Amino acid sequence: MTVFYDEINIKTKGEVDIVDITDEIQRKVDESGLKQGIVCVFVKGSTGAITSTEYEPGLKKDIPRILERIAPKKEYYNHHETWHDDNGHSHVRASILGCSLTLPIVNGTIPLGTWQQIVFLELDTRARNREIFVQILGEEE
Amino acid sequence: MTVFYDEINIKTKGEVDIVDITDEIQRKVDESGLKQGIVCVFVKGSTGAITSTEYEPGLKKDIPRILERIAPKKEYYNHHETWHDDNGHSHVRASILGCSLTLPIVNGTIPLGTWQQIVFLELDTRARNREIFVQILGEEE
Amino acid sequence: MTVFYDEINIKTKGEVDIVDITDEIQRKVDESGLKQGIVCVFVKGSTGAITSTEYEPGLKKDIPRILERIAPKKEYYNHHETWHDDNGHSHVRASILGCSLTLPIVNGTIPLGTWQQIVFLELDTRARNREIFVQILGEEE
Repeated sequence: MTVFYDEINIKTKGEVDIVDITDEIQRKVDESGLKQGIVCVFVKGSTGAITSTEYEPGLKKDIPRILERIAPKKEYYNHHETWHDDNGHSHVRASILGCSLTLPIVNGTIPLGTWQQIVFLELDTRARNREIFVQILGEEE
Repeated sequence: MTVFYDEINIKTKGEVDIVDITDEIQRKVDESGLKQGIVCVFVKGSTGAITSTEYEPGLKKDIPRILERIAPKKEYYNHHETWHDDNGHSHVRASILGCSLTLPIVNGTIPLGTWQQIVFLELDTRARNREIFVQILGEEE
Repeated sequence: MTVFYDEINIKTKGEVDIVDITDEIQRKVDESGLKQGIVCVFVKGSTGAITSTEYEPGLKKDIPRILERIAPKKEYYNHHETWHDDNGHSHVRASILGCSLTLPIVNGTIPLGTWQQIVFLELDTRARNREIFVQILGEEE
């Protein structure tokens, strides 16, 4: 069993930017040479999230709309008192969605459905540079 | 360290079918012969989810009711414009709940609570056949 | 590759107690001696959750407020018929947030952001003693 580690760096456009990172994650799996195992995808920071969805223009509007209902931007957040910040809703959404996603690797491939992509969700109010960690554990055959 | 891989195939009844897959996952852990490690349970497709809950008749009604509040079925979804589909709410719910769950294996057992089961949630509008991937990494002693 | 296992035991104050467990998890990583790999943090039981957030007093009020909107405590839950219980909302919230979190270990450290902590959320209605499982897989260099 081997561990392979790398990072992906992406630029986002602020909330709610949904970025398809499937190809980059699969490329890291390819580079690792590992055929059977798992890949753990993690975002550093508490206002971003990793999940999967069908990456298409409709859901890129639907997901932000539902997140706005769960934790509305305009509402008062106690978080803003701590830092005179404006992203309390971003934090709450991120904690619900989660900062990491672990997926199987089978015969060198992440066995996603055809209409299933790995996505990063920028939940912060501003454009950001994001470090996404890719940790792969597995075997070469 | 070894990797053991297998699949579980289940038939679901359409939304929101909650299926207890604990015994089948534990059986795969038994078959693996691995005693210390982790198991990653993943559903292929973007309208299903894996989580844990107490599997009992009450929560089988409560969870769908709360999901209906979060992402109501009757509402307009932009997703429907892309595919002339009816399952925009299914997709949004699935992205929030997550397509995978990773659990520890300790002395050959997943240390779940007595009232804690691993469940698959069928969030799509129709009955489906689902492939659930079980990837186990660990040691024999 | 090696597996290192340990438990953390914490006392909580009932809902919604948010407990910062970052230092204890990192200490287990230190004790393991493993430098590259993953750590899987899991709570036994179906009324607690593991996630990450910025651990500060504002969000400790904001997160419970949003959870109360998602699954209100006062509402009727079918779960209460099964056990004559009062924690249906706790269960639903826990299933949405998730019982486990898997994170990378890079050079002996979990690469969290400065304002990103690993937290346990007590969602049950009463104070509890909680067992949190820490399963680490990785290599010594």
